[in-house]
Amino acid sequence: MQPILFTGFEPFDGESVNASWEAVRALPDEIADHPLRRLLLPVEFGRSGDLAVEAMRQLRPACVIAVGEAAGRAEVTLERVALNVECARIPDNAGAEPQEQPVIAGGPDAYQTCLPLQACAEAARAAGVPTAISNTAGLYVCNQLMYRILHEVARAAAAIPAGFVHVPLTPAQAVAKLAMPSMESVTAARALKAIAAQACSTCEPFAEC
Amino acid sequence: MQPILFTGFEPFDGESVNASWEAVRALPDEIADHPLRRLLLPVEFGRSGDLAVEAMRQLRPACVIAVGEAAGRAEVTLERVALNVECARIPDNAGAEPQEQPVIAGGPDAYQTCLPLQACAEAARAAGVPTAISNTAGLYVCNQLMYRILHEVARAAAAIPAGFVHVPLTPAQAVAKLAMPSMESVTAARALKAIAAQACSTCEPFAEC
Amino acid sequence: MQPILFTGFEPFDGESVNASWEAVRALPDEIADHPLRRLLLPVEFGRSGDLAVEAMRQLRPACVIAVGEAAGRAEVTLERVALNVECARIPDNAGAEPQEQPVIAGGPDAYQTCLPLQACAEAARAAGVPTAISNTAGLYVCNQLMYRILHEVARAAAAIPAGFVHVPLTPAQAVAKLAMPSMESVTAARALKAIAAQACSTCEPFAEC
Amino acid sequence: MQPILFTGFEPFDGESVNASWEAVRALPDEIADHPLRRLLLPVEFGRSGDLAVEAMRQLRPACVIAVGEAAGRAEVTLERVALNVECARIPDNAGAEPQEQPVIAGGPDAYQTCLPLQACAEAARAAGVPTAISNTAGLYVCNQLMYRILHEVARAAAAIPAGFVHVPLTPAQAVAKLAMPSMESVTAARALKAIAAQACSTCEPFAEC
Repeated sequence: MQPILFTGFEPFDGESVNASWEAVRALPDEIADHPLRRLLLPVEFGRSGDLAVEAMRQLRPACVIAVGEAAGRAEVTLERVALNVECARIPDNAGAEPQEQPVIAGGPDAYQTCLPLQACAEAARAAGVPTAISNTAGLYVCNQLMYRILHEVARAAAAIPAGFVHVPLTPAQAVAKLAMPSMESVTAARALKAIAAQACSTCEPFAEC
Repeated sequence: MQPILFTGFEPFDGESVNASWEAVRALPDEIADHPLRRLLLPVEFGRSGDLAVEAMRQLRPACVIAVGEAAGRAEVTLERVALNVECARIPDNAGAEPQEQPVIAGGPDAYQTCLPLQACAEAARAAGVPTAISNTAGLYVCNQLMYRILHEVARAAAAIPAGFVHVPLTPAQAVAKLAMPSMESVTAARALKAIAAQACSTCEPFAEC
Repeated sequence: MQPILFTGFEPFDGESVNASWEAVRALPDEIADHPLRRLLLPVEFGRSGDLAVEAMRQLRPACVIAVGEAAGRAEVTLERVALNVECARIPDNAGAEPQEQPVIAGGPDAYQTCLPLQACAEAARAAGVPTAISNTAGLYVCNQLMYRILHEVARAAAAIPAGFVHVPLTPAQAVAKLAMPSMESVTAARALKAIAAQACSTCEPFAEC
Repeated sequence: MQPILFTGFEPFDGESVNASWEAVRALPDEIADHPLRRLLLPVEFGRSGDLAVEAMRQLRPACVIAVGEAAGRAEVTLERVALNVECARIPDNAGAEPQEQPVIAGGPDAYQTCLPLQACAEAARAAGVPTAISNTAGLYVCNQLMYRILHEVARAAAAIPAGFVHVPLTPAQAVAKLAMPSMESVTAARALKAIAAQACSTCEPFAEC
């Protein structure tokens, strides 16, 4: 079976962990008979996208789910759209701080996700995890990665389910902050697993793609 | 050793569980060498207070921690104060819906908690759980219960640590709601355990009481 | 001089006014020497877009600013992007309730605004009005209208500044709601005027368009 | 006629105005036939309370309404209760930063307001201003002032309406902040006027006092 590719991020913004990688690590090694491949990405514009696209070309995965951390969000959120804009509030881990620049010059203004959004959200909720659909993935490294992944899907004309999911901070991260929602990594992983299983079960080309 | 008395609530407002009781159930049977006594209370003005006070008189606990569910809050919150006011937004489980009435006619306007607030918050955070101090316990059954417990402490002139802690919804509860923060019951219970241990370790009469 | 076209919406969702039309009505009749044309639109998928596009073809405006009401937002918000998706939480004023449908079948996934975003936000703030850039215009009638306007700009290959601005509820509307931010219509109009003046002063084709 | 005493605060926390004083300044010079007396107070624990109590003794007002600024709140809020606690997040304008100290050593844990809360909230809403009742005035200089005023009312056994009202930031203040609700000072003043008129029309001793 083709693998499912999950990506997570390294810590950033002074944190010692990144909730996305904690959740990806908490996943089982196989979902719906597909072996899992986990890729840890740097919080860097450009390079995170390069590494993800390279892995897609090498692995030819059945499904790609990139995961990011969203401080302030209370639920697992499935992202609907990636914009062709980079706009950093803080420098990335390599010191880059793009302002109102395109992810890919000349690329389309945006790509909609290749995940069956409503079905995936329903599957994650059925697994007992608060989950919503988000209409903005921000303009930071997460959005850039999602755009790069969907651009590669479009380029390869490969109708695979691919998208981006944000997870809340872990409780340990939220301890040092004020009134921040959090979620245990095992809980977030339950949602990710359900989303991947749902995405892989949708064998036919999607309405969404 | 004298027991620690923990109270939790029955479900209300159309829910099938109450996060407070789930957290209390997830506690160990002994904390800091004190045996635990768990009391499940109805979400009813008056009767919940009666039952708690009755248990305090029978058990003569070393410490009383009442726990309630706070939809919308992201952290475990230690309540600072109980007001001598009942004001219900929805009817309680017995149909009562008091509006701007005192909990105890002629009682003081408010009681401050008998828990060492800052030390307890710090202990819960050290246990890895996002925890804050709240300056309002609302005006519903929770506040009424806290007022009744502190009134009994004042009446008995018994300088025991006693107070109220709100816990977030469980993930399963938040699934059916929109953008609601949640916390696993085992996580909330870690905070409750740390709070009780801290409260019991403060043997001398408190500045706070 | 070519006119500036401002559109606002009729009331919906049980309201008796719509904050967007109140703000548009509070505008002066001329901005930066351009006469103002105000168009009141129904809160209806399809028809609101049809009417706006028709007005654009007839008036050949120098600038198009569509305005909508955003309950819950505290600031005037300039929208960055319109998605090719309709997804209604409540029926529109004609009873339509599309779910995950495209605004224009076969259209691009999204259009970025043709307003100079950062400059317009700065101009509105300089006028003393709290203003931010929003990365999601929702999926209701507002987003649909914005998409239709930008699709027409793209179709006509007319590099005019065109975009969408959300305004908060009016104080009178917020009175009946709970903890809702609001803004006086004259305050919101100060921001709209500054935005239009800034947009018109950017004579050359935009980087953004 | 006895005057109505309104107090507002000087700027603090790096601001150049304080929304409370802007609103008090925007009030008419007479409300319900009572002349207005305005008192500008320093944002200082202790001294602000001293000055307010001194003014109460000199003026023997028919009504006292202290006003403060509440960044983050969207509505005018009538405070229900003042706690006998000072706990500063930032130093006051004299550099004091009390932590978990009483306002008045040996004073009661809290005082409930002497304003007819529900009637005053209703009057402000009837004047078109979003208004709510708040169950916490915080633990900073505002709460301390409210406690001092109500302590003086209790001491003098003078059943006058007296209480505290928080107003949102002004739009000009919110411009420099992120996603902060605001309210024009003239709008906030409409609410303050309605609240004072309602309080003065309640001639008989209050249930609340």
